[in-house]
Amino acid sequence: MDNPILHKLMAERPLVLASGSPRRKALLEMLGLRFTVHVSDVAEDAPAGLSPAETAVYLAEKKAHASAAGFSKATLIAADTIVVLDGEIIGKPADRSEAIAMLRRLSGRTHRVYTGFSILKTPEMQCVSDVDCTAVTFNEMTEAEIKAYVDTGSPMDKAGAYGIQDQSAVFINRIEGCFYNVVGFPLARFYQTCQPFFAE
Amino acid sequence: MDNPILHKLMAERPLVLASGSPRRKALLEMLGLRFTVHVSDVAEDAPAGLSPAETAVYLAEKKAHASAAGFSKATLIAADTIVVLDGEIIGKPADRSEAIAMLRRLSGRTHRVYTGFSILKTPEMQCVSDVDCTAVTFNEMTEAEIKAYVDTGSPMDKAGAYGIQDQSAVFINRIEGCFYNVVGFPLARFYQTCQPFFAE
Repeated sequence: MDNPILHKLMAERPLVLASGSPRRKALLEMLGLRFTVHVSDVAEDAPAGLSPAETAVYLAEKKAHASAAGFSKATLIAADTIVVLDGEIIGKPADRSEAIAMLRRLSGRTHRVYTGFSILKTPEMQCVSDVDCTAVTFNEMTEAEIKAYVDTGSPMDKAGAYGIQDQSAVFINRIEGCFYNVVGFPLARFYQTCQPFFAE
Repeated sequence: MDNPILHKLMAERPLVLASGSPRRKALLEMLGLRFTVHVSDVAEDAPAGLSPAETAVYLAEKKAHASAAGFSKATLIAADTIVVLDGEIIGKPADRSEAIAMLRRLSGRTHRVYTGFSILKTPEMQCVSDVDCTAVTFNEMTEAEIKAYVDTGSPMDKAGAYGIQDQSAVFINRIEGCFYNVVGFPLARFYQTCQPFFAE
């Protein structure tokens, strides 16, 4: 797309996605962006006392900075997605039984998904970050439905043990906020954040 | 997915999607369903005086019945998606300038998307239909942004002149309801409707 903001984002200096998530890669490709992927090993821990929104931003910035060292002149994009139910962060399931337990907890309830993201320009290390939040409501799921879904294998690499862009869609009757934020990257918020950062 | 309801939906009799929409085809494939596509020519007009929700259901049923004749024993699925702003139905744009005018109207405002769907079993002609509604909020778009988006060509075959699953995603900061309903098929509502219809 010959959108002026996205054009400048891509043309100004090489664009690097500092995330190994195939979902984030697909979303940036959907916008027509051309970029490379560079993932650094980062311990995904944050200081105690941060809110979920602050944690997501903290981890996004940590990932962006960890990848920045290798690029003398680039724009790095990083993100972190967090699923929160009853004030508790629900991570990725360690195994099948943990995935089942997570989905049992989400069944019939509304939880919140936060995706923090960070845009970092090297060598200036000029950085801008933001976070979006979406409420996601699951219908009640039976044990048979949960197990059939877990058997697809999809839950295992995902926070909260589900992907809204896969078969779990049949259980999600409502969201409030940005859909792509739940997938892993809040496209509209990202675009708004880019506007002053990549203005002429 | 070995989901009991989807399994029965597919196993009971051949499944036919009575819609030419590549988006609907992709959504049913996402659920792991196997089906054929059969599109009948149907005049997309509805009786005056119907609400948007009633119109969407009426047209979905019309499409399902129009395709049913060719199938002695099948389950047909049809759908119709309607975009409504200020109580007025906004159809597909006839040309580039109409697409631009539609997007100018949607800019900075919230509109509603209705998708009616119909599930029809032949030869009994047993039919069940429902409709879902999602509120979609666009950020303000500049003329340059609108024109760049229209130049992608994506708006031309879509009610309201946008596809939430393409580059227009950068302008949509919020939805309330089902995302897939906006794409063209409300997966969660469809699944709930299937439950009694395909119970053991």
